[in-house]
Amino acid sequence: MIYLDHAATTPLLPEVLSAMHQAEKHFFANASALHTPGHIAKNQIEECRALLAKLINAEPEEIIFTSGASESNNTVIRTFEGHQIETSDLEHHSVFEAANAYRGKASPRLYSYMLVNNEIGEILDLPDKKDGYLHSDLTQALGKIPVDIKKLNLDYATFSAHKIGGPIGVGALYVKKNAPFKPLIIGGNQEGKRRGGTYNTIGIIGFKAALEYIDKHKTWQIYDKKIRNLRDILAKRILQEISGSSLNTNLKKGKSLPNILNVSFKAAEGESIQLYLDAEGIIVSTGSACASGDITPSHVLMAKTGDAEIAHSSIRFSFGLDNNIEDIDKVMTVLPKIIDRLQKISTINL
Amino acid sequence: MIYLDHAATTPLLPEVLSAMHQAEKHFFANASALHTPGHIAKNQIEECRALLAKLINAEPEEIIFTSGASESNNTVIRTFEGHQIETSDLEHHSVFEAANAYRGKASPRLYSYMLVNNEIGEILDLPDKKDGYLHSDLTQALGKIPVDIKKLNLDYATFSAHKIGGPIGVGALYVKKNAPFKPLIIGGNQEGKRRGGTYNTIGIIGFKAALEYIDKHKTWQIYDKKIRNLRDILAKRILQEISGSSLNTNLKKGKSLPNILNVSFKAAEGESIQLYLDAEGIIVSTGSACASGDITPSHVLMAKTGDAEIAHSSIRFSFGLDNNIEDIDKVMTVLPKIIDRLQKISTINL
Repeated sequence: MIYLDHAATTPLLPEVLSAMHQAEKHFFANASALHTPGHIAKNQIEECRALLAKLINAEPEEIIFTSGASESNNTVIRTFEGHQIETSDLEHHSVFEAANAYRGKASPRLYSYMLVNNEIGEILDLPDKKDGYLHSDLTQALGKIPVDIKKLNLDYATFSAHKIGGPIGVGALYVKKNAPFKPLIIGGNQEGKRRGGTYNTIGIIGFKAALEYIDKHKTWQIYDKKIRNLRDILAKRILQEISGSSLNTNLKKGKSLPNILNVSFKAAEGESIQLYLDAEGIIVSTGSACASGDITPSHVLMAKTGDAEIAHSSIRFSFGLDNNIEDIDKVMTVLPKIIDRLQKISTINL
Repeated sequence: MIYLDHAATTPLLPEVLSAMHQAEKHFFANASALHTPGHIAKNQIEECRALLAKLINAEPEEIIFTSGASESNNTVIRTFEGHQIETSDLEHHSVFEAANAYRGKASPRLYSYMLVNNEIGEILDLPDKKDGYLHSDLTQALGKIPVDIKKLNLDYATFSAHKIGGPIGVGALYVKKNAPFKPLIIGGNQEGKRRGGTYNTIGIIGFKAALEYIDKHKTWQIYDKKIRNLRDILAKRILQEISGSSLNTNLKKGKSLPNILNVSFKAAEGESIQLYLDAEGIIVSTGSACASGDITPSHVLMAKTGDAEIAHSSIRFSFGLDNNIEDIDKVMTVLPKIIDRLQKISTINL
């Protein structure tokens, strides 16, 4: 299998599995408990918090653990219920649908702009927040490009473990000291009363191992060189070898994440391409997995292209650190034939 | 180590670990994705949903997966924001604090009554919901006593994996067909748009393995015989061998969970007892782990006894299927000495 759907979720890193398997034996206790196993579990959680804070240039007490990016995003946006909420056109469903649900007229305003988009990899310019507050979903950015919440001038930021080789079900939220905050999950004393629920100790230990990997290997440098190179080779070959192909991702440095390539193929339907590639053991996606089952075209591609046909004919390749040039060769052995076949049976003129 | 804090969290069952470790290799894909690895992951999730539905006498489409019991409780209670919300005195923080935050005057009313309390194990009589809706936190009940949501006449019910040998970070919510519902985490199309966020496939596979264990072994029968017997032996010996001891748990069948024993010791402070037991490798808790760090006495014990001294001097033993009579012997070798020592240094007259 050639896995090119890392932006949807990543395989668990061996280092993460090893840390979690160790933890399952030793740190299963409730981390809020006052006994020794509880303290040991809590220490692991605090180490993870400190490491994430260090990586993004924040303070440990500004980090809250959550069940994932969707919860983090919802927490921030609901804090501003009844307030003006401005988002980019490219936000994840958990931002733009929450914004639509909670938006009102009160000030100060919340600006929620992702730093990088998950479907086309675009790096966005964050807005001037003026007298409001700025939130950014950094889920796809962490580990791929350097992230400094102070330089980005953020009040809130969202993170997820399973996009960086950690487990699903663990996320984090950066909340700048003294920024407005309303807990989404009310409960016990966990997280300074900011997020109830038993600490997911083993999951957080997995998150920590993934953060250690990022920290140790400076993964953003590997993405910037090795992965960018692979991505650009695939893009070039697609444009050269497949008629009717066009890129939805701007390959220029600084304009997109180095590991995402979104491509449209005239007169070929994205889901059909995905299924044919799947049959060949090549795993890609059409836009965001979270929108699956929805037949409306991607709001992100519609916002970028304004063209439903392009939106419907797109697929996303998203690379991980384990991909290599042989994967590209394999894709380019089968993809041109798949597109050719689909274009031949299409009723749309090329 | 003698672990008697199962009501806080349970060790992972070997069957759960084995299922999760298998899953880590094979089912890591985003379960919302349309490719084969995504479909395989989704199938596992649907199997878990069907099994939980079968165990509680519900339909699979009435089950929503969440990050845990606190999220499930908050989801139901926030659905009734602005409505009358009535709870028992014994609710978990994630119910009573959420109820305090969201309670209003509109009808219909929500009744939120846990079936069994986590601190003293009391089995509650659920109220007549009249023309309102009834929610019950069944976190501590599942697997310990038979649970039938139709017989209980429930509209909503909360479940958690990590109280039955499954992983932390996975829970479920039963929502009766056509009952009012507002998503707490808004996002993609997951769970029929009722709960956004990437499916925690590996966690849900662990939950499934724990449910299979319950189903296969009819664990409520083991709790009713073996564990009830252990619990009652410990209670009897404490009353006989330790002066100033009194039970906060009603041992009568049908009045309490068979695996929880809450005891107070006159002139001995609960946290001190816990720490001394901890030093001997015996793990118990004082009330709910979620309230740790809070010096106010347990609201549950205050509601039951009205006596702050009793509330402050209580500890909870909570048994799991792996406990045995040797554990009781060990406890009774050290506990009387600990209590005696604490009572001697106390300023309270016995």
